[in-house]
Amino acid sequence: IAKEVAKLLEMKAQLGEDEGKHKFVLKTPKGTRDYGPKQMAIRERAFSAIVSCFKRHGAEVIDTPVFELKETLTGKYGEDSKLIYDLKDQGGELLSLRYDLTVPFARYLAMNKITNIKRYHIAKVYRRDNPAMTRGRYREFYQCDFDIAGQFDPMIPDAECLKIVHEILSDLQLGDFVIKVNDRRILDGMFAVCGVPDSKFRTICSSVDKLDKVPWEEVRSEMVGEKGLSPEAADRIGEYVQLHGGLELIERLLQDPKLSQNKLAKEGLGDMKLLFEYLTLFGITGKISFDLSLARGLDYYTGVIFEAVLLQQENEPREEPLSVGSVAGGGRYDGLVGMFDPKGRKVPCVGVSIGIERIFSILEQRLEASEEKVRTTETQVLVASAQKKLLEERLKLISELWDAGIKAEMLYKKNPKLLNQLQYCEDTGIPLVAIVGEQELKDGAVKLRIVATREEVNVRRESLVEEIRIRTSQC
Amino acid sequence: IAKEVAKLLEMKAQLGEDEGKHKFVLKTPKGTRDYGPKQMAIRERAFSAIVSCFKRHGAEVIDTPVFELKETLTGKYGEDSKLIYDLKDQGGELLSLRYDLTVPFARYLAMNKITNIKRYHIAKVYRRDNPAMTRGRYREFYQCDFDIAGQFDPMIPDAECLKIVHEILSDLQLGDFVIKVNDRRILDGMFAVCGVPDSKFRTICSSVDKLDKVPWEEVRSEMVGEKGLSPEAADRIGEYVQLHGGLELIERLLQDPKLSQNKLAKEGLGDMKLLFEYLTLFGITGKISFDLSLARGLDYYTGVIFEAVLLQQENEPREEPLSVGSVAGGGRYDGLVGMFDPKGRKVPCVGVSIGIERIFSILEQRLEASEEKVRTTETQVLVASAQKKLLEERLKLISELWDAGIKAEMLYKKNPKLLNQLQYCEDTGIPLVAIVGEQELKDGAVKLRIVATREEVNVRRESLVEEIRIRTSQC
Repeated sequence: IAKEVAKLLEMKAQLGEDEGKHKFVLKTPKGTRDYGPKQMAIRERAFSAIVSCFKRHGAEVIDTPVFELKETLTGKYGEDSKLIYDLKDQGGELLSLRYDLTVPFARYLAMNKITNIKRYHIAKVYRRDNPAMTRGRYREFYQCDFDIAGQFDPMIPDAECLKIVHEILSDLQLGDFVIKVNDRRILDGMFAVCGVPDSKFRTICSSVDKLDKVPWEEVRSEMVGEKGLSPEAADRIGEYVQLHGGLELIERLLQDPKLSQNKLAKEGLGDMKLLFEYLTLFGITGKISFDLSLARGLDYYTGVIFEAVLLQQENEPREEPLSVGSVAGGGRYDGLVGMFDPKGRKVPCVGVSIGIERIFSILEQRLEASEEKVRTTETQVLVASAQKKLLEERLKLISELWDAGIKAEMLYKKNPKLLNQLQYCEDTGIPLVAIVGEQELKDGAVKLRIVATREEVNVRRESLVEEIRIRTSQC
Repeated sequence: IAKEVAKLLEMKAQLGEDEGKHKFVLKTPKGTRDYGPKQMAIRERAFSAIVSCFKRHGAEVIDTPVFELKETLTGKYGEDSKLIYDLKDQGGELLSLRYDLTVPFARYLAMNKITNIKRYHIAKVYRRDNPAMTRGRYREFYQCDFDIAGQFDPMIPDAECLKIVHEILSDLQLGDFVIKVNDRRILDGMFAVCGVPDSKFRTICSSVDKLDKVPWEEVRSEMVGEKGLSPEAADRIGEYVQLHGGLELIERLLQDPKLSQNKLAKEGLGDMKLLFEYLTLFGITGKISFDLSLARGLDYYTGVIFEAVLLQQENEPREEPLSVGSVAGGGRYDGLVGMFDPKGRKVPCVGVSIGIERIFSILEQRLEASEEKVRTTETQVLVASAQKKLLEERLKLISELWDAGIKAEMLYKKNPKLLNQLQYCEDTGIPLVAIVGEQELKDGAVKLRIVATREEVNVRRESLVEEIRIRTSQC
């Protein structure tokens, strides 16, 4: 035993030494990850559901560069601007990686003088945030954005955005969810009637935005302590932000002696009522909650805002449904395009962004728990041989299959063992094996094996393509 | 008239003034572009052909971050390293944007200890090159990579890569093309027998690489003048690099008194012969040219190298077919993964990269010339109304259609004119209009109009989904 241990220790020492030789760290940058074939299969399923929905609603698709001129992003994100990745100045223009898809979209509209478009855009965005990778929070992450730009009658495009969130979250079967809705005008009106000075609207709004993560007492002390709001004003806000409900709450607030006197709040509440009427026609009010505590961080919103959160699963019983985080959000931003237009011409916009990484995390965890086997290729048939010296015949056959549009693989060995070829099919889920043998070659036939049943049939070579198509038509 | 001119001049002055107020430049960064809906439609067609081919060959798909640790890219690209985009040091790791997909792939294999995979990866890469946008040369551009990693019998995966290039270029119908093939071992053997000192192999190889752009005389004077090669050695190289052909050339060089004495050249020529045998079985030697002038710029190739070039179209007659540039390239790189492995363990790899931007340029130009109308949405039906006050009914109907999976749009107006609704279908290519009217509502029916023929049929509401499906099944 001592000898064995000594040997192992020596091996370990050698290993350490070798690793010392290796000068660089073998990793992806902080907050990023690779997607292997299995993760990609999950990712593509989710993307496909989302793209189908966007196309169902008649959206076109665009793409913009991963970086923008630094000045394009300046002054659009408020306090979050510090999280923008800049490129090194290597001579030429100063560039930054895009922080979201909304600002590049607004730049695109202004630059091309487009006043009317419904588009989606699925791409990666970059934020130098503190990553929390197990919860799906990364520094490089996908956003799936759908936006409607143009001058239209109130709340029709806004209602469609909420319908889209509802369709996608239902389709992905992520469990129960609620879509919280509010309006920046209602918030501003509320701040005004609570006695918040105009100059403090945005910063108090940021405080309210934290209510989904920290309790009211903490938010209140930030407002009063850090931000110098009067305790009375804070307490008045405190009463409003605990309100949430549906049409009846909107009606009640429209009668609220203070709010109903504020022009902005009245406008916002009127539109909110209209929105709920449209959502009733769509049959989705059951998952919509008008919630006065919803504020959204970004500076550019001007009207309706919303955020979808997943609720605790039923199989994890809690006293109250607990939100496990936002998976979609959006709102109306009528001023952003004007910031890019030389003449300040406005293009009203409303849009939604699906936070796909959190959805991936959930789908990935669920798949691991279920032990379902995910195929990572679509290969229909493996071209194999039972005897030696048939490489040329395999190459000829696989080439015929490829040219006929059949998804086919072979092992890259001159003389692979039949057992290894069959094992490869088991491992990767290939349903059929086309076996080339000397006798079959003479007969102008191929032996087709069905992996699942181990059944084998002789197929005439000229019928092979058709036979494979029929037998894999469900794939 | 003078008054009018004065007015116009005043307006112009105002315009200039307003533009002065607008502080930033409205553009995308140098060497980049936006893709509008029309360009995206073309792009997705090309991607779809390429992905189909990769899947037909049984490839899995992976994705890696857009940036890597700077040191991951260091020392992999030779003279081209100066073209790498670095990120600004904002604290934390030093990062660079990826320059290609091959080095991240090798890093991925080493990091995850994968010794055996066939994968594709379609993503943007970044090079601070001099852009030539009309010819499809950008600083941000897509690469479509297919690679086979693993220890296999010689030339089988290599032949498949060439088959893939052949399939994709045929499928995209870009016109005539030729795939030039060579081998780094043949080049190195050739340099040795021509009397190039070992230390000058890589730099002389770089000179040879320029032969597709500049004439031999210029390359020769670079070799002799700048790089200090003897005129005799250069002249010997000059004789070899004008050779190109097929199997018969390989056979001749295998008998070449000088080359046949060189171990590397002999190995390379032996494998080249094997490769041509496999390509004959695939039936694609007609488009393959063994070309001793092909060198490829990148440092990491170790065996077979290849490059596909499009030839001048027949409708533009020239004396000789003229190459309009490389659209795909690749080769074998058996040492790259080992550079990342702590123990230097090698994973042999061969792969191909499709240069999709040049292909886009061609498809885009062709489409513009043809005046073919490209649809940018897949919308099957527009939900319209003939009378006023039917917004609610339109919302109810469109919601039913969406929930049934029908791709449907409506105008975001309370009371749109029927003519405007029909015009929208004409403009965007929507084939059907479902018209809600008061009489139809009473009858439980919807009027379905076929845009192309102006035919109108009354359809019972419960049959509408089925009717739309049947009538758009070809879409």
